[in-house]
Order: sequence, then structure tokens, then C-alpha cells
Amino acid sequence: MSGSKQILITGGTGFAGSHLAEYLLETEPDATIHLTTLHQGAERLPDTLGKATIHELDLANLEQTQALFTEVQPNEIYHLAAMAEVGSSFEQAAKITSVNMQLQLSVLTALQTITPLARILIIGSALEYGKVEPSELPITEDQPFRPLNPYAVSKVAQDLLAYAYAQSYGLQILRVRPFNHTGERQTTAFAIPAFAEQIVKVERGEQTTLRVGNLAAIRDILDVKDVVRAYTVVMQRGVVGEVYNIGSGVGVSMQTIVDGLIQLAQVPITIAVDEARLRPADIPELRADIQKISALGWQPEISLTDTLQRIIEFWRSIT
Amino acid sequence: MSGSKQILITGGTGFAGSHLAEYLLETEPDATIHLTTLHQGAERLPDTLGKATIHELDLANLEQTQALFTEVQPNEIYHLAAMAEVGSSFEQAAKITSVNMQLQLSVLTALQTITPLARILIIGSALEYGKVEPSELPITEDQPFRPLNPYAVSKVAQDLLAYAYAQSYGLQILRVRPFNHTGERQTTAFAIPAFAEQIVKVERGEQTTLRVGNLAAIRDILDVKDVVRAYTVVMQRGVVGEVYNIGSGVGVSMQTIVDGLIQLAQVPITIAVDEARLRPADIPELRADIQKISALGWQPEISLTDTLQRIIEFWRSIT
Repeated sequence: MSGSKQILITGGTGFAGSHLAEYLLETEPDATIHLTTLHQGAERLPDTLGKATIHELDLANLEQTQALFTEVQPNEIYHLAAMAEVGSSFEQAAKITSVNMQLQLSVLTALQTITPLARILIIGSALEYGKVEPSELPITEDQPFRPLNPYAVSKVAQDLLAYAYAQSYGLQILRVRPFNHTGERQTTAFAIPAFAEQIVKVERGEQTTLRVGNLAAIRDILDVKDVVRAYTVVMQRGVVGEVYNIGSGVGVSMQTIVDGLIQLAQVPITIAVDEARLRPADIPELRADIQKISALGWQPEISLTDTLQRIIEFWRSIT
Repeated sequence: MSGSKQILITGGTGFAGSHLAEYLLETEPDATIHLTTLHQGAERLPDTLGKATIHELDLANLEQTQALFTEVQPNEIYHLAAMAEVGSSFEQAAKITSVNMQLQLSVLTALQTITPLARILIIGSALEYGKVEPSELPITEDQPFRPLNPYAVSKVAQDLLAYAYAQSYGLQILRVRPFNHTGERQTTAFAIPAFAEQIVKVERGEQTTLRVGNLAAIRDILDVKDVVRAYTVVMQRGVVGEVYNIGSGVGVSMQTIVDGLIQLAQVPITIAVDEARLRPADIPELRADIQKISALGWQPEISLTDTLQRIIEFWRSIT
């Protein structure tokens, strides 16, 4: 490798990973951007990622991961890779917990043994906090973990393994816990793209109503582009060992989201409540305390309307 | 199985498990006591366990665990089984985290699918709290987790998986986080039996000095017999879904422990500090807030001197 900065994004072909790669290709033109993927060709990738180097490997395999670190010699690692099947996480609990623990241990061991001076950003999730009482809002980074499914437990375990390795080996580990985020290329396993896809189907006459779940739920929702910019801010200016919430700090009801999407539709949209979309053990409100990351100089910049507009247009562009 | 109460203790041939089995055989004479072990004959068991039924199986294997639950139809489950190699938990991180997650998922799935009305007590650990600032003492159940090694992370994951299953399936799950405990049959991987064994060796002329580590550390130490009695109190009177610290509420320095053991020795003992026994990332003081379990009517009953006396006598009895 040349003397230029080597930036590694694990899970770099996924939803947030590909947005992060686009952002870094634009803002760090002199760096080499490496992405990992479990199966090349599994995702629809934007053409803008053409300048990144894609590595196909199983991060849960320690030898493959150490070989990658030896080859790339990363200076900065954005570690986004994880199995993220939230909806089926009880059915797939053994696999999700096993894969997410093993890949975390591989990455931390490769870091410690091969590039111990590299900075690494560990991506957790607001789902680690899980069940939150209204009196506990907004949610600080000290909120007790009450995760509601095995995926969320696996994210706690990833987060805390990173903490333990940082404490024991003095590694340059930073951690973040992003709240909900959305944008183009997010799968319809998530509510907002699922709504947008349905609205486009109604526009095309392929569907008659927009089927929705619990619209009373209030969530802290960011544009994925604001989130990946926050990742780079924490990477550049975060305090090693610390953990940062990434959120808007504002609660938005799912009703507001649906109303916003309907306003952008090209035809009138009627709503039908679908019992199957009402998840059990739902939490009425999630809202992040973002004082810590705000102190690093980051603030959300993209309006909800702009985000929803881009998502609708993305689904219109899918043939 | 007959209509009598069926009590299952996973890891029932281990250190705390065997003490719990002895206690339940004495206090619940009409119940049938079942113990699980990974390898029969691996532990030295007291004769008093003769009346218990021992089942040899791998709890990480879901089919074996479901077969056990189907056969035993337990009414109460004390779930103690876990890989507990704290000292080597970075070297064995992949195995410890994998085994401890998989056996937890097996047991929770067997509970949910076969005996969903049984009460289960999930054994966590004070190591889940990990790094604690002096200002945070005594440690309540709401203390943030800052685990310092992969074993401790695996205990957090076990604890929170139980929480997630309880929340989603309405299971009768209770959780405890015991602080340090000791007694006869504890292995010399732990400080107090290691000290006692050495003192007996000095008494026998097989060793000249007592080698010790960091004696300034202050710990919350209980007799294992008080701990297993606490398990039964939480099983009988605990609030489903809640988690309880189990500790003395009192901090004792390791110096005090060593002094107490030396007073019980039959010969004068000299001390030598052994650098290899100074663990990294040590915590100056651990002390439990035990208000929650105290409210259930449990208090420690056995004095430290009595505990140390029994441990010394145990090591004298080993030929």
C-alpha cells in the first residue's frame, strides 16, 4: 500500500456503509477507501463507489480478518458489519448472536494484533437501550440497557466487547449508538422505505391503500447522510474510549412521517392499519440526548422533508 | 415424573451448584432435585448429593436441552451453568462468548417451548458492572455495565437475553447478580481457596511462603452457603422480571482475608508479593447495594471467620 491514508469500512456495501463510502470518497479524495462485504454483488451499489476497493470475506473468520488487516494496514476503521435481522431476531437468535459476537472478536483481535495504533469506530444501536420509561427521556449514554430482542442483545455485547478490549489493551476505540436513520437503499424491512415503496405502488396502480402499523410511536429519526457525517466527526474529534449517541434530539411520530410521505405522493393515498405490522413490546417514545456529540461540533443538517423526498424518488427510480 | 416438585439446577455439580443442591435436598425433602453436568465425574462431589438425579448433557445443544426439559418437566430452574474461565477469558474469548450465549438461548427456548409456566432464576455476576468509580458505591442494580473482559461481557449478554425473553414471552424469569463468594470446593483459580491451599502447603512443609497479589483491593465477599440461600429466597419471593444484587453490602480488603487465614494457620506464615497475581485493569473497591434483596427478607448469616475456617479445613482434608 502507498503512504496515503487507508480507510476500511466493514459492511461497506450495506445501507449506511455505502452512504459512508460515498461521503468519504468525496471528502477524503487522497485516501484509499476499502469496503468489506460477505457476498459481492448481493447489494445494489451506486456507481459512485467505483473508486473504492471491495474485499469479499467472512469477518467472523479470524484468519480472513487478520489477512485483510495485514494487506490493507488500515489507519481508520469504520466497523459497521453485523447481522441486522431485527424482525426475525428471536427465530434466528442463535445465528445472530453467534455471528455478531464472533465478527466483533475477530475485528478486535485483528486490530490488537496487526494495527494496534489504528482508530476504530464501533457502531452500536439505540436498540441497546430498548425499553425506556417516559421519565428517562431524552436518553443519555448512561441509560441502562433493557434490550428487547436477541439482535439488540448482540449489539450490547459488541459495544461492551469493544469497551473491554479498549480498557485492557489501550486501543484507539470510539463507540457510537445511532438512533433510527433512513435514506435511499434502506430495505423495506424498515418502516419508512416500506411506506415509500407502497406509495409508489399506489401511484402506479399496483396497490390501492397504504398499509401501516403503530403510527403513535415517536422516534428520533435522522437522514443516513447526517449519520455517516457524524461517524466521521467522532472518528476525527471523538475522545478515545467514549461512546456517543447519534440522533436528532427530536421526537417525530410515525404519523408525521406518513403524512409527510403522503404529501409527496402524486395521487391521493388512503391508509389501512395492518395488525401484522404492530410489533410486540413496542416503546412509545425514543429520543436521544445529543449533548455529547453536539459538543464535537456536529448537528443534523438535512430536513425530514428533503429526506422523505429523496426516498420516494429512490423508489420511483426502481423499475 | 411424580406429582412432587421438580427442581432443576443447571451446572448443579459445580461450585455454587453443588452447595445449592445440598441446601435444597435439606430444605425441600419432598422435591426431586435434578442436576446437569457437561461431563459426569469431572468434579469432586459431596456424598450428600447422592439423592439428586444427575443428567449429563451439553446445554449449548438445543435438542438435548429440550429433551431434558421434556423429561424432567421442571417447576423451578436454577440456571447456574456457564463457562467461567475469567482469568483466560481474552485467550478463550470466542469459545466463552459462544458457549455462554448458545446455552442461554437453549435454556430460554426450552423454557418457552416446553415449560413456559416454570420459574427460572438466571445467575449473572457482579463482573457485569466491571469498572466502578468510588463515587458510584455501593453498586445498585441500575449501575451501567462496564465489563472488563469477554467473560463479563458474556454474563451481560446472558442477563439481557433473559430480560428480552421475559419481556417478549411473559416468562417467569428472575435474575440475580452475585458478588464474590467463596467456600469449600471452589477452585484455586480464585484468590481465597488459592491462599488457603498455600497455607496448608506451608503447614505441611511443602511451601515456605504465602504468595499473594494485590491485597489493597476491597471486595464484597459472601459465604457460598449464604449465596445459595439467597437464590432460593429470590426464587420463592422475588418479583418476576426483576434483578437482585447478592452481596454482603460490606467491603473487605484482601489484606483482611489473608490476615484472617493466617490467624487460622497452625504455623507462622510469611507473605511474598507475586507480580503474576496482580491482574490488569483491577478495580479498587466493589461493594453491593443490597436493599432490593434485603426487602425480600434475606440477610447474610455466616461470619467471615467461620467461612475461612471451613475453607482451610477443606484444604487440610484434601490428600
